[in-house]
Amino acid sequence: MKIKAGIIGGAGYTGGEMLRILVNHPSVEIAFVHSNSNEGNLISDVHTDLFGDTDLRFTGTLSADIDVLFLCVGHGDAKKFLAANPIAPSIKIIDLSQDFRLKANAADQWVYGLPELNREAIRTANYVANPGCFATCIQLALLPLAAKGLLKGEVHINATTGSTGAGQSLAATSHFSWRNNNLSVYKAFEHQHLNEIGESLVQLDGGFDSVLNFIPQRGDFTRGILASVYTESDLSAEELQDLYASYYEGHVFTHVSAKNIDLKQVVNTNKGLLHVEKHGNKVFVVSIIDNLLKGASGQAVQNMNLMFGLEERQGLALKAAAF
Amino acid sequence: MKIKAGIIGGAGYTGGEMLRILVNHPSVEIAFVHSNSNEGNLISDVHTDLFGDTDLRFTGTLSADIDVLFLCVGHGDAKKFLAANPIAPSIKIIDLSQDFRLKANAADQWVYGLPELNREAIRTANYVANPGCFATCIQLALLPLAAKGLLKGEVHINATTGSTGAGQSLAATSHFSWRNNNLSVYKAFEHQHLNEIGESLVQLDGGFDSVLNFIPQRGDFTRGILASVYTESDLSAEELQDLYASYYEGHVFTHVSAKNIDLKQVVNTNKGLLHVEKHGNKVFVVSIIDNLLKGASGQAVQNMNLMFGLEERQGLALKAAAF
Amino acid sequence: MKIKAGIIGGAGYTGGEMLRILVNHPSVEIAFVHSNSNEGNLISDVHTDLFGDTDLRFTGTLSADIDVLFLCVGHGDAKKFLAANPIAPSIKIIDLSQDFRLKANAADQWVYGLPELNREAIRTANYVANPGCFATCIQLALLPLAAKGLLKGEVHINATTGSTGAGQSLAATSHFSWRNNNLSVYKAFEHQHLNEIGESLVQLDGGFDSVLNFIPQRGDFTRGILASVYTESDLSAEELQDLYASYYEGHVFTHVSAKNIDLKQVVNTNKGLLHVEKHGNKVFVVSIIDNLLKGASGQAVQNMNLMFGLEERQGLALKAAAF
Amino acid sequence: MKIKAGIIGGAGYTGGEMLRILVNHPSVEIAFVHSNSNEGNLISDVHTDLFGDTDLRFTGTLSADIDVLFLCVGHGDAKKFLAANPIAPSIKIIDLSQDFRLKANAADQWVYGLPELNREAIRTANYVANPGCFATCIQLALLPLAAKGLLKGEVHINATTGSTGAGQSLAATSHFSWRNNNLSVYKAFEHQHLNEIGESLVQLDGGFDSVLNFIPQRGDFTRGILASVYTESDLSAEELQDLYASYYEGHVFTHVSAKNIDLKQVVNTNKGLLHVEKHGNKVFVVSIIDNLLKGASGQAVQNMNLMFGLEERQGLALKAAAF
Repeated sequence: MKIKAGIIGGAGYTGGEMLRILVNHPSVEIAFVHSNSNEGNLISDVHTDLFGDTDLRFTGTLSADIDVLFLCVGHGDAKKFLAANPIAPSIKIIDLSQDFRLKANAADQWVYGLPELNREAIRTANYVANPGCFATCIQLALLPLAAKGLLKGEVHINATTGSTGAGQSLAATSHFSWRNNNLSVYKAFEHQHLNEIGESLVQLDGGFDSVLNFIPQRGDFTRGILASVYTESDLSAEELQDLYASYYEGHVFTHVSAKNIDLKQVVNTNKGLLHVEKHGNKVFVVSIIDNLLKGASGQAVQNMNLMFGLEERQGLALKAAAF
Repeated sequence: MKIKAGIIGGAGYTGGEMLRILVNHPSVEIAFVHSNSNEGNLISDVHTDLFGDTDLRFTGTLSADIDVLFLCVGHGDAKKFLAANPIAPSIKIIDLSQDFRLKANAADQWVYGLPELNREAIRTANYVANPGCFATCIQLALLPLAAKGLLKGEVHINATTGSTGAGQSLAATSHFSWRNNNLSVYKAFEHQHLNEIGESLVQLDGGFDSVLNFIPQRGDFTRGILASVYTESDLSAEELQDLYASYYEGHVFTHVSAKNIDLKQVVNTNKGLLHVEKHGNKVFVVSIIDNLLKGASGQAVQNMNLMFGLEERQGLALKAAAF
Repeated sequence: MKIKAGIIGGAGYTGGEMLRILVNHPSVEIAFVHSNSNEGNLISDVHTDLFGDTDLRFTGTLSADIDVLFLCVGHGDAKKFLAANPIAPSIKIIDLSQDFRLKANAADQWVYGLPELNREAIRTANYVANPGCFATCIQLALLPLAAKGLLKGEVHINATTGSTGAGQSLAATSHFSWRNNNLSVYKAFEHQHLNEIGESLVQLDGGFDSVLNFIPQRGDFTRGILASVYTESDLSAEELQDLYASYYEGHVFTHVSAKNIDLKQVVNTNKGLLHVEKHGNKVFVVSIIDNLLKGASGQAVQNMNLMFGLEERQGLALKAAAF
Repeated sequence: MKIKAGIIGGAGYTGGEMLRILVNHPSVEIAFVHSNSNEGNLISDVHTDLFGDTDLRFTGTLSADIDVLFLCVGHGDAKKFLAANPIAPSIKIIDLSQDFRLKANAADQWVYGLPELNREAIRTANYVANPGCFATCIQLALLPLAAKGLLKGEVHINATTGSTGAGQSLAATSHFSWRNNNLSVYKAFEHQHLNEIGESLVQLDGGFDSVLNFIPQRGDFTRGILASVYTESDLSAEELQDLYASYYEGHVFTHVSAKNIDLKQVVNTNKGLLHVEKHGNKVFVVSIIDNLLKGASGQAVQNMNLMFGLEERQGLALKAAAF
């Protein structure tokens, strides 16, 4: 008996990644893929790499005969959708927008869906707010320190994202002629993901109130986020390595590499990789994820697996692109 | 009872892709991964994207307790390896080099491993010579015409390959500073894959003796081959569409798109996509594959699936990179 | 006494390249840069690489006190502009659109501005229709053969263009997430530049009526066109090399390389490079240009230099990007 | 009467850029281009974009009939070269290696060749040590603060370099298949350029002893460095803008943009662009240069212009690649 999944906003980038994963997920049946703009069109007309893999079409109507609903819509639109379309309480919801990530915005029944932070709560949740991509990448770098109350000084974060982080809407900063071989900073010190990162750190360390300095950058690649993160630490290199290895033991997608890492080690996978060094009085962490997978749709399926009692890696043993 | 697979030359690009596929293949157990240069090292030290996925190490010795042996070695080295290391007749062999592709170079027991041409022969083969990447892409564009004896005039082929086609050895033409944003022609009219293409066309059409004009190009991307192919044809656009659709019916990885196609539709998959147009008296075909998958390791696993009676797509329902 | 130049359509890609050249041209003074959409804005707000180099602003009005007018507008808009804005006969006009390239569309006073074909006529022209980018690249490959009446069989052309060839308007095929690491064919056999190429070949060889088969491709780089061209020829490799070297002797921007060439040799220059080989009964030519320079604004300035009796390379001794 | 220039190490990347600039420099004549590995070869056989622009050949011997000598050799080799080849005192020397940048390594007659720091000293110098690429980019971001004694707290620097920064030698980290669409950190907190940056800051502010935290990154583009830099500051946004604008007034290549900047604004130019923001108690500076020009050969020619009393921009009014 397969899990019946519905997808809202199936024509966007996160919707497409959801489909690429779910068409091969052994325990899931795609019940419908909703799109306002593409009703009636073949899914493979929009996500053209799925040509030959599925004959599904986008629908303009919803079906109540589902077990889980993925909201792959823009920020603000998830809340509007749920207000306009009451969903039966028996249906679990996973929202990929930012609408329910912050406690101030979400009823208590919403769980922040970062398994490395909230795995047990996710297992029993009905509603999961899937974390942001930058937020996931940066939190993976900081959780082990926060869990031990070791985040005392200012934190310095520089993270570069691939172009798919900006979605499929056309914009000057995603024009190929501009972005190719280019690099730029945006929203320095003011990226909206700082809020959800802060809430998670407080969850682990009630007294956390350090400054997070975050410089986001637009990279000239399509997939992935690399964050470089440092702060003061009294621990030795060995203690830090042990701290991180210990924290992530048993987390099937997140691993700590003793060797230096590079972004393409995780592209097209649901993995997070970390590398920890000590320099002077600073702990330095490099963290990498695929922004569309561990940073969005892959993590959403990971959350679904947890919510339905499936093995966490089901459907997510993805072949890395590697090159 | 899983198929036990051995890999020779596991540290190269095709060896790496083989491992990325086989670690997730439900019917295969990797018995050993041989490498002269990396004996004793972790596989994930070389193929770093596999960090967290496998603890296997390269071996310097062979085991006879296998069902299938993949030769992922350079051209010329497969023949040398088999001469120096007699393999028990019960073990099936799939060679990814060019050593056994041409009839003049191979004993009769070798089958040319292009399922779209030789599926039935592959099912019963003990030894399969896996086709070249350009050769696969170009043959997919020509087989339907050859099968009907319709290749009468000169054939005009331009095909651009990603950098992984040149393997991992360092070279001036694979230096990032040179290749990025660059394009160049090489081996015009003289690429070695013309020979295996010619043999396949003769197999389908004993009278085939047309000239194949082939311009290979080095593209500034990592994965994939796009071939544009045309020749004279009396058929109408509809007849051509029918001819191609009919030929590829039942071929699970190769599909004919009525819409124009672009390379990334197949990147990181084992698929071949074709698009056929008629212009004046010419049939024009665009053919795309991932050079490391349908053009190498993916097709090798497809062949293994056929040789062992498995479902052809097993282990090969790969998530496209898409971006 | 400097030449006073006006630019219409200064906010687009060819307008920007015109400005990048003219701000350093020793014999030119930029009189005005017209833009409907950017009147009053700093030029460096649009062409941001010019920040620090010029304080000019776009104007919404024209000045008659100029010696030359460059039309850097879209196809169709040059004709409309000249109909709506009568230009004094004393002002020379160089149009970068396709509006006046074909004899059927242009009064006799318009000269097709390919110096390698029409240098002497350009010197005395008042109105020059600047060639298309593909058209320039392909004609450079064919002119020496046509000049000797040696284009007898079908001609086979495959040419890949950088993304700037599509201008700055946002489109799905110029979205970074789509185009990066991608390749695709468009307008196969039907590109509009075939017409102007055909007219030039007839100009050199009145009896020319061969078929030009032209496959244009969209490359994943920003600048440049590489065309690979072949046709039947009775000449030997040496005779061909001599023919091309002889034809281009004295052409300061177009050179014949005895060695293989790659696209980045000409990127950010006004040069055209050619490489000629003989294979069987075919002559094979690789031709490369920068689509925005020799294929557009650079050639326009080259034409201006000729029209005003300046040294042809003035302002065009551009440093190659090289990498 | 032109300045006669000799180049040692002309076959490398900085040697090539030197040649691309000097072949068009109105006041310079290239006397010889020395290369151990390429003696007798055409310069355009190595720097193939110069084909058609120069018929010069590499020499294996030196000529004393020069006015200036550029050392474009590897780190350590400049010192060795000068020890083995005594240069007449009348000949000025500009060294692009790191051999003479630090006071501890250089006799007093060597001047650190950053015009934005030492313009007047450079004008009268006989020997100039050209700054490192990262060092140039980062110093441009910090000099105005240091000049006023305002660098009091720790400084946080993240800078990403293009692949040409690693030169033309083949390496795993410059292999196209690896580097394309990739990003990685290296030498975190330990890059050798920290030393020369520190000396400059002490020169401006004798009391400077803040910690410089520097994370270098390898980008997947060929040219350019973008540094994001921040530290504590009591100044307001307006005061900071004024401070930077005032410091760089009269510096012809370095400009402060009120708008956000992106790397390609300076690619293929000798410019440095800066953008300054205030966030909370931090001043945030983005600094961009082309690593091969303002970060190497362009700055070397700028220094030459100063040393010989030429206009500073001579030969350096380079057309930006822009795309």
